[in-house]
Amino acid sequence: MSQTIPVPSVPAPDILRCAYMELVVTDLKKSRDFYVDVLDLQVTEEDENTVYLRSMEEFIHHNLILRQGPIAAVAAFSYRVRSPEDVDAAEAYYRELGCPVVRKKEGFVAGIGDSVRVQDPLGFPYEFFYEVDHVERLAWRYDLYSPGALVRIDHFNQVTPDVPKAVNYMENLGFRVTEDIQDDEGTVYAAWMRRKPTVHDTAMTGGDGPRMHHVAFATHEKHNILAICDKLGALRLSDAIERGPGRHGVSNAFYLYLRDPDGHRIEIYTQDYYTGDPDNPRVTWDVHDNQRRDWWGNPVVPSWYTDASTVLDLEGNPVSLTQRTDDSEMDVTIGADGFSYTRREDAESDFGAHSGADDGEDEFKLGHQL
Amino acid sequence: MSQTIPVPSVPAPDILRCAYMELVVTDLKKSRDFYVDVLDLQVTEEDENTVYLRSMEEFIHHNLILRQGPIAAVAAFSYRVRSPEDVDAAEAYYRELGCPVVRKKEGFVAGIGDSVRVQDPLGFPYEFFYEVDHVERLAWRYDLYSPGALVRIDHFNQVTPDVPKAVNYMENLGFRVTEDIQDDEGTVYAAWMRRKPTVHDTAMTGGDGPRMHHVAFATHEKHNILAICDKLGALRLSDAIERGPGRHGVSNAFYLYLRDPDGHRIEIYTQDYYTGDPDNPRVTWDVHDNQRRDWWGNPVVPSWYTDASTVLDLEGNPVSLTQRTDDSEMDVTIGADGFSYTRREDAESDFGAHSGADDGEDEFKLGHQL
Amino acid sequence: MSQTIPVPSVPAPDILRCAYMELVVTDLKKSRDFYVDVLDLQVTEEDENTVYLRSMEEFIHHNLILRQGPIAAVAAFSYRVRSPEDVDAAEAYYRELGCPVVRKKEGFVAGIGDSVRVQDPLGFPYEFFYEVDHVERLAWRYDLYSPGALVRIDHFNQVTPDVPKAVNYMENLGFRVTEDIQDDEGTVYAAWMRRKPTVHDTAMTGGDGPRMHHVAFATHEKHNILAICDKLGALRLSDAIERGPGRHGVSNAFYLYLRDPDGHRIEIYTQDYYTGDPDNPRVTWDVHDNQRRDWWGNPVVPSWYTDASTVLDLEGNPVSLTQRTDDSEMDVTIGADGFSYTRREDAESDFGAHSGADDGEDEFKLGHQL
Amino acid sequence: MSQTIPVPSVPAPDILRCAYMELVVTDLKKSRDFYVDVLDLQVTEEDENTVYLRSMEEFIHHNLILRQGPIAAVAAFSYRVRSPEDVDAAEAYYRELGCPVVRKKEGFVAGIGDSVRVQDPLGFPYEFFYEVDHVERLAWRYDLYSPGALVRIDHFNQVTPDVPKAVNYMENLGFRVTEDIQDDEGTVYAAWMRRKPTVHDTAMTGGDGPRMHHVAFATHEKHNILAICDKLGALRLSDAIERGPGRHGVSNAFYLYLRDPDGHRIEIYTQDYYTGDPDNPRVTWDVHDNQRRDWWGNPVVPSWYTDASTVLDLEGNPVSLTQRTDDSEMDVTIGADGFSYTRREDAESDFGAHSGADDGEDEFKLGHQL
Repeated sequence: MSQTIPVPSVPAPDILRCAYMELVVTDLKKSRDFYVDVLDLQVTEEDENTVYLRSMEEFIHHNLILRQGPIAAVAAFSYRVRSPEDVDAAEAYYRELGCPVVRKKEGFVAGIGDSVRVQDPLGFPYEFFYEVDHVERLAWRYDLYSPGALVRIDHFNQVTPDVPKAVNYMENLGFRVTEDIQDDEGTVYAAWMRRKPTVHDTAMTGGDGPRMHHVAFATHEKHNILAICDKLGALRLSDAIERGPGRHGVSNAFYLYLRDPDGHRIEIYTQDYYTGDPDNPRVTWDVHDNQRRDWWGNPVVPSWYTDASTVLDLEGNPVSLTQRTDDSEMDVTIGADGFSYTRREDAESDFGAHSGADDGEDEFKLGHQL
Repeated sequence: MSQTIPVPSVPAPDILRCAYMELVVTDLKKSRDFYVDVLDLQVTEEDENTVYLRSMEEFIHHNLILRQGPIAAVAAFSYRVRSPEDVDAAEAYYRELGCPVVRKKEGFVAGIGDSVRVQDPLGFPYEFFYEVDHVERLAWRYDLYSPGALVRIDHFNQVTPDVPKAVNYMENLGFRVTEDIQDDEGTVYAAWMRRKPTVHDTAMTGGDGPRMHHVAFATHEKHNILAICDKLGALRLSDAIERGPGRHGVSNAFYLYLRDPDGHRIEIYTQDYYTGDPDNPRVTWDVHDNQRRDWWGNPVVPSWYTDASTVLDLEGNPVSLTQRTDDSEMDVTIGADGFSYTRREDAESDFGAHSGADDGEDEFKLGHQL
Repeated sequence: MSQTIPVPSVPAPDILRCAYMELVVTDLKKSRDFYVDVLDLQVTEEDENTVYLRSMEEFIHHNLILRQGPIAAVAAFSYRVRSPEDVDAAEAYYRELGCPVVRKKEGFVAGIGDSVRVQDPLGFPYEFFYEVDHVERLAWRYDLYSPGALVRIDHFNQVTPDVPKAVNYMENLGFRVTEDIQDDEGTVYAAWMRRKPTVHDTAMTGGDGPRMHHVAFATHEKHNILAICDKLGALRLSDAIERGPGRHGVSNAFYLYLRDPDGHRIEIYTQDYYTGDPDNPRVTWDVHDNQRRDWWGNPVVPSWYTDASTVLDLEGNPVSLTQRTDDSEMDVTIGADGFSYTRREDAESDFGAHSGADDGEDEFKLGHQL
Repeated sequence: MSQTIPVPSVPAPDILRCAYMELVVTDLKKSRDFYVDVLDLQVTEEDENTVYLRSMEEFIHHNLILRQGPIAAVAAFSYRVRSPEDVDAAEAYYRELGCPVVRKKEGFVAGIGDSVRVQDPLGFPYEFFYEVDHVERLAWRYDLYSPGALVRIDHFNQVTPDVPKAVNYMENLGFRVTEDIQDDEGTVYAAWMRRKPTVHDTAMTGGDGPRMHHVAFATHEKHNILAICDKLGALRLSDAIERGPGRHGVSNAFYLYLRDPDGHRIEIYTQDYYTGDPDNPRVTWDVHDNQRRDWWGNPVVPSWYTDASTVLDLEGNPVSLTQRTDDSEMDVTIGADGFSYTRREDAESDFGAHSGADDGEDEFKLGHQL
């Protein structure tokens, strides 16, 4: 059904890692309060329209940009590449794909040099750069750590209607799938892909897209994530917690999802595993497995499935959405037409009966209520 | 409306702490698997009908008894008193109250000597003892610790229809209230009471009673509680997790609620605070404060409000229930007739509108959906 | 040899807990930097000569006073008693003992009302009070927590030449011994005593005295203690770390010892166990057991044994020292005349040979080098 | 002075990561007890002479081999390469270097296929392989985790007399230096080098060599390392703890060093940082900085500097040692001819005086005593 994105004849750029996201926010002061005063990201540089933030272990200029703008959106998913030549390679790669491409030798934002921005075949604003200002790596600056200190940017997560098409495109770009969620009919609901040897640099989540699902920052330990929740409670901002904290099935990481003042979703994440071997075994989860998204079987709140951020094209206009036509993960797992199981064998003995949710009560905890 | 329980002329026994609960379970092997193999409680002694369990830091014979029986129920909430004479005092106290009282010099269960069991004025089977076999305190036996090791019994929680009446009775028995949940009209939804200087040895939760809401064990740290969740996931028993993990508002402790194979509710709990000064300030929470039960504002699952265990009288028969006539906490906080707020000032500006749930969406996260 | 301290005919005051210490410091700014900026104790009140500090979970006015003075010393070990009448009881008790006693209805320091200070029979400046200003318990103020947040005052530790004499006096005052260190000849090297049901409110450590060995504050978890070390490293103040972090054998707690700018020793401490039952089993450690002071067998630095703070009498003059005549713990465990073992059975097979340190190398890690 | 190792004309193999170490042990049962019963490594396969062990997150056959043999030694430092062709590349690379080389298509040990072993120019037995049996990644098997669970092999550490020579050789082999220890005269005492993007896959430590300093396994969190110490205490094996736990300056990781029954040194390690960018800033530590090896300034025990394991040549014979002629890190930092500082500015004001240790007392904590 979906048309495959062609493979350019020129080599893909050698991507190191997801490096930063540029967020457009509608009230810069409120957003700064959230990211700096609540989440304790470190300010590298700021002016009246823009705040450049980094995590404790970062040595490049920033991992997150907050830029004042008219509507909440994502202006760039930015990847660092291995060399200056890889910026050339990225430009050539996307030009051959026929995408909108803008190259700026002086960079699009402070702290970053020669860069190329493209609107990729899935509609996302991707950036590739090598040149960057080095700043102090604050890893040893324990005098600056807060109880919930964010130490690294970990990954992006993108919403796109056709996950297999997106995966194929990303694999050509050099990414490797580490985990995914499917059903027995082969529908793919989401896939996790990496360049650096963690579970992902980005994931593709099935839904109307292109949209940005979340950007994730890592902490050292699980208690750091709990401390963020505790602080949000103390500040009477607990409604910024959308989902979690919990343990993911996929990735095995400990997680928390927050919504910033504009509704942009932020994940706080810790302790996935090494995936750097080329034969790293892919983990495929059954979409009906109630532990796939939360290993403890806690329910996924509907907004987590339905909400995501607008992305901008290279002129700064919102990219219009394409609807997902494959099944929706929410629909097949909860509600009248879905089911989830804790123990597959329990579910299998019941499979005949799964025409509705009425008999789903013994199989999982809360999902059927949401 | 409710009749106050009279104050006996004889002194109340000097109670040290909640010491153990005797649970009747319908499948001893399944229950043993849960408490020993999953939760890693330590077996002090067992036979074909009974398993005596203790936590890592305990030096008395047991903190939990599993006894095979025909229906799932609670046979005893057992408190340790300061001296042998306090067992006499307890007997005299409850005899004057006109309660059913049974005294056994040899004890009702293994490991415990001279004891008295009563069915108290609220209908609960309470036990008081001093004599007990000492066993090895396993506190230093780190070779026996599991990642989720339970180190102490912390408290009981009882469901009773009339909380102020229950509190008055317990205060006469020597307990002190540390925290409670009320509304602006003075309805009391729950109260926490202590003998040892923690937030509680038992709590009274408003509902049809007498029933047992839960028994709680403490871990050293929060990660121990997360490890229990992770293990339940690995064993495909995540549906044993009913609520949490999370941070309580009340008590400030980190918590998790599990349901055992019979549905008995177990809390895992860590890090409340010292309450031993006589003028320890009582904390009163507004029932509409969405952070009172979960500091992070995560929703309380309805079963947590509605389900509780049967308690037995001294002949081993289920005690029949008295209905709560005061408002229900669940009803006033979620659903069509309830509301909850994250920020009181937000709620206050809206108070006129709270005739229904339709406009509650901005005020709290998930509660309105449950 | 030692003369027993007589038991007064009047009852001892009912002591709740160790409540605060008054420290005299020689450079208030430096001390404030240490306790406020480094250790993040909370300032309740301050003026040019005095800083009143409390821990996160405290509701009384302070747990530590820093007072500018000519020499580094301890002006008071202060205990809270159960009632106003217990201050009278304390006054009567020490008057009968013939000690210097000063009663001040308005209190000796800000925030505290009617109090009595005594120089006790061991030479220590003890205070007893009930009346105190209540301040906000910051337990829920996670916006104020630092990674190494101190949540409670836990205990004092006092140096005194004759430990059995001191223990006998303290038991008469209502304290109970929870643990001690002895040798096979019955020499007592140290003893831990409690009022509140933790391992101790104070300990008696054998040495030239009276001196103050340390005052201890509790954290919630072990990582909080590690965070304090990390921060001291970042501030290039790691030489404030005297010993640890480590796990105690005695008390089973996790610990760290710091020295403040005047050399006053501060312990950071977490996770001992409940001791509130009257028959709580006393744990006696062999002085030669290399895991008694550090469960991991890490060496105790000599300064930890030899250094302690001067205490002041009620006129503010330093109390002169009485020498310990019993064996010194340091001498019997390390060096030419001492020995320590990891496994008692190893030591026993070698006991004949323990005339010197030369053959001690196989038995323990580092102690013999220090 | 030292002769540089030539650069082969053929390309170096593309090394993924350190993968396993083969240890020769003199009492297999004792070693198995240590690694399996104490450290809870998982047994993949074993027979009467050999035990194959892996960590919780590993999917290849093993990370550690214990093989019964006549003397305690290291038979192989084994690296995984990116492809089967890289094994050929490794063979060609070392053949051109003139090293002893053995290629075995069926592998040298169980679970590993086509491999090449070489005795490299520094004298170490290095192995390179790609083919390996996949086994279950136990990452999600929380039912098998112990409190101190080891989740990954992290790195090797090798003792060699001429660190710059070794670094140059390793850089040609494709490794990148992340951190090192030098003095103002340019003497290099140790260097850390990585292939995977952590601080290291191996380090070169200056000393008589070739010897194996340690092999390191990672835990998820710091409390896991503390739990290992606690368990060793409980088993009365605390003398297996050689150094730590503590925070490294170099690498910023939390660490613990153990000695196994043969004296082989094992590090337990957690939380270093991402180093995968090609311009990752190298951190150079001053050898006199007392926080370089322990961020908290705790002393390094002399055995940690002096002891290391014998390595074997390809015939299984011990490789004879070459003496270090550069300064020794221990000598320049502690003792009569060394000094260490906590604050460089303090040291600088004293530099003239550093002819001896007598005036070193104010500058660091304990080092001068060891």
